[in-house]
Amino acid sequence: MYKANITITLRPSILDPEGKTIEQSLHQLGYGDVHNIRMGKHVEVDVDAGTEKEAREIVDTICSKLLANPVMEDYTFRVEKLQVAVER
Amino acid sequence: MYKANITITLRPSILDPEGKTIEQSLHQLGYGDVHNIRMGKHVEVDVDAGTEKEAREIVDTICSKLLANPVMEDYTFRVEKLQVAVER
Repeated sequence: MYKANITITLRPSILDPEGKTIEQSLHQLGYGDVHNIRMGKHVEVDVDAGTEKEAREIVDTICSKLLANPVMEDYTFRVEKLQVAVER
Repeated sequence: MYKANITITLRPSILDPEGKTIEQSLHQLGYGDVHNIRMGKHVEVDVDAGTEKEAREIVDTICSKLLANPVMEDYTFRVEKLQVAVER
């Protein structure tokens, strides 16, 4: 069993009205030192796979098929083996 | 100038209907090997600060004051120095 941490971000050329709004709110709250806020998605998922390579292939497929919008978004991910607590 | 990558996740005890829905969609699409999908937010922000410590304090404050819901969400972040391209 593997755990994947996926980060999905808007491509740099795509405007981010949500980030812009949060930036304005922060400036109004007195935090003028923050700029270029970009919002993205973080997805955690457990993957049932025999090898890390297999897990990475599954994650790559679900990202490109469902989780990310291939026109507007980029994605990166990290896969790590989950410790199973049924030893000894 | 520093860049912060913030990850905001729902606390483990909080139900995640969005993640559940995506999990069901993936199963219907034939990806039965993925489980426990949890959706979170990823925020990128540039911070104008003199030192990394100062930048971390600003990021911590905006996370707890505005970006994350302290009752339902946890946050972690990484801060790195931005290379300024105005040298020589």
